[in-house]
Amino acid sequence: MDSKIKVGIVGYGNLGKGAAAAVNQQTDMELTAIFSRRDPQTLNVSDPNVYVLHVDDAKQYQEQIDVMILCGGSATDLPEQAPAFAEMFNTVDSYDTHAKIPEYFAAVDKAAHASGKTSIISVGWDPGMFSLNRVMSEALLPKGETYTFWGKGLSQGHSDAVRRVDGVKNGVQYTIPSEKVMEQVRNGENPSVSKSDRHVRTCYIVPEEGADTARIEQEIKTMPNYFDEYETTVYFISEAELKENHAAMPHGGFVIRSGKTGSNNHQIVEYSLNLDSNPEFTSSVLVAYARAAYRMSAEGIHGAKTVYDVAPAYISPKSQAELRRDYL
Amino acid sequence: MDSKIKVGIVGYGNLGKGAAAAVNQQTDMELTAIFSRRDPQTLNVSDPNVYVLHVDDAKQYQEQIDVMILCGGSATDLPEQAPAFAEMFNTVDSYDTHAKIPEYFAAVDKAAHASGKTSIISVGWDPGMFSLNRVMSEALLPKGETYTFWGKGLSQGHSDAVRRVDGVKNGVQYTIPSEKVMEQVRNGENPSVSKSDRHVRTCYIVPEEGADTARIEQEIKTMPNYFDEYETTVYFISEAELKENHAAMPHGGFVIRSGKTGSNNHQIVEYSLNLDSNPEFTSSVLVAYARAAYRMSAEGIHGAKTVYDVAPAYISPKSQAELRRDYL
Repeated sequence: MDSKIKVGIVGYGNLGKGAAAAVNQQTDMELTAIFSRRDPQTLNVSDPNVYVLHVDDAKQYQEQIDVMILCGGSATDLPEQAPAFAEMFNTVDSYDTHAKIPEYFAAVDKAAHASGKTSIISVGWDPGMFSLNRVMSEALLPKGETYTFWGKGLSQGHSDAVRRVDGVKNGVQYTIPSEKVMEQVRNGENPSVSKSDRHVRTCYIVPEEGADTARIEQEIKTMPNYFDEYETTVYFISEAELKENHAAMPHGGFVIRSGKTGSNNHQIVEYSLNLDSNPEFTSSVLVAYARAAYRMSAEGIHGAKTVYDVAPAYISPKSQAELRRDYL
Repeated sequence: MDSKIKVGIVGYGNLGKGAAAAVNQQTDMELTAIFSRRDPQTLNVSDPNVYVLHVDDAKQYQEQIDVMILCGGSATDLPEQAPAFAEMFNTVDSYDTHAKIPEYFAAVDKAAHASGKTSIISVGWDPGMFSLNRVMSEALLPKGETYTFWGKGLSQGHSDAVRRVDGVKNGVQYTIPSEKVMEQVRNGENPSVSKSDRHVRTCYIVPEEGADTARIEQEIKTMPNYFDEYETTVYFISEAELKENHAAMPHGGFVIRSGKTGSNNHQIVEYSLNLDSNPEFTSSVLVAYARAAYRMSAEGIHGAKTVYDVAPAYISPKSQAELRRDYL
């Protein structure tokens, strides 16, 4: 490649910081600018070669940036930002509100077609790599069942929920796959299990001074939608212990397809992730697919895309001849 | 889809039989014909709707067949058949002579471009799904190491080798990943290990009447290239036991990428297969990619391709809207 792919990042939270670090690991990409809604002066970016700018100024950088990584949240940021940026840039994002993906796709697709840009939506690990493995393993083994297990991992939504319980000063929640069900699946038993059968939940809670811990535990375990259908364990710990042992954001999970072929032979396909940092892995996936968005755009493949539409060669920095010679 | 994809199979050994069974599991495909070098009368095909024909007659079926699955071997069949068939049909094959893939690709590519057809080469699990996971996980985690482990599985080449030893009546060889090394890799230790460190070999041998088993064991364990660098265990069993316990063709393996992101966070991506039948899984992959070859050809994407060039949506029978709505 003659020159490096010039990358912009929109949003500088955990995901944006991870994306900046991930771009620096890639030899064919360089970080050009970070855009934020905050005052650029307040962002702590050490690299003097990176512009730090207000998001409203992005439109002036259309010539300098090959692909924009949108690192906002799915609730309010992306539904507004993604179509707006697709009018100006190739983009990738990690939109993960499953139920609204079709309408989100349509909005981004319209904008990207109008501008002649390429936008890869819902990239990360789930949606993302897990989605890919669900579809591919089912295509290979049409007769069978697919199981997704999440964890062991810190769940942001459930941690927020336990922190809202009266008397809880701080706390985190881990989602953990049921070992028993995983074994059944790997043995080809194809158990009929709900999401709540497949996972258990463990909470580490820092109670407020003098709070009634029995009441807190009861309130957590019976919380509708979040905990009531799950086997839940609650531990009470100190603030110091929480900081020491529960500050990281590990996550991961398993996609297992259990199928049968020919004369009733069991075939198991399994994909798993064991991540010390959930946001850094998600942003690493975003960065690899940013390469794909740029290349597909250069080839005239425009509009909104998902991981299903991206030939794997597009995410690799290697040439196709190298891939065939060294990796096949 | 208006009508089913019409599939032909060339070669009716283990792989061809597996492909026939796999086509029957797919709702959007139908098996039209099986071609063999043997006398068609001698092939045991029960489905009255399937033509059973001599391979020389294939050229007369160009109008009736949408994609041809080439189920011959890599040593002599495919180098000759694949370019010849690519002149007439869309094809998929499982060519696996790694060192010769570039020249094989070039020959098939030339033929497929000339005919305006699409040929996906080297499809299966390794090369194939494992190749895909090596490339994708490295693209996501550029800083790290990739480890491929094969097994536990029956190795055809090594089984042939032990059966050539003087005094061996029959026998099989299993390749087994080293549990110790797998644990090191999963822990992010990135050990420096050769292929022979990563695997152990176990042989089940039926000796001929009165054969010197100590000499056989010694000869196997010191066999150059095949066994001398490996930790090898040899068991002597009866012919009855061999038939009872070692007639299946299980295989599988693991591709593990151990990488680091951001501030030194470990990230592990693992893909694994646990297969009761190696040939039936390989042919299931061939059948899914046969769908892709047909669709890409219909869209005008011609020439030789590998799994790296195939967007995952092409191997799934679902529409792109369904994939986005139900699987993302």
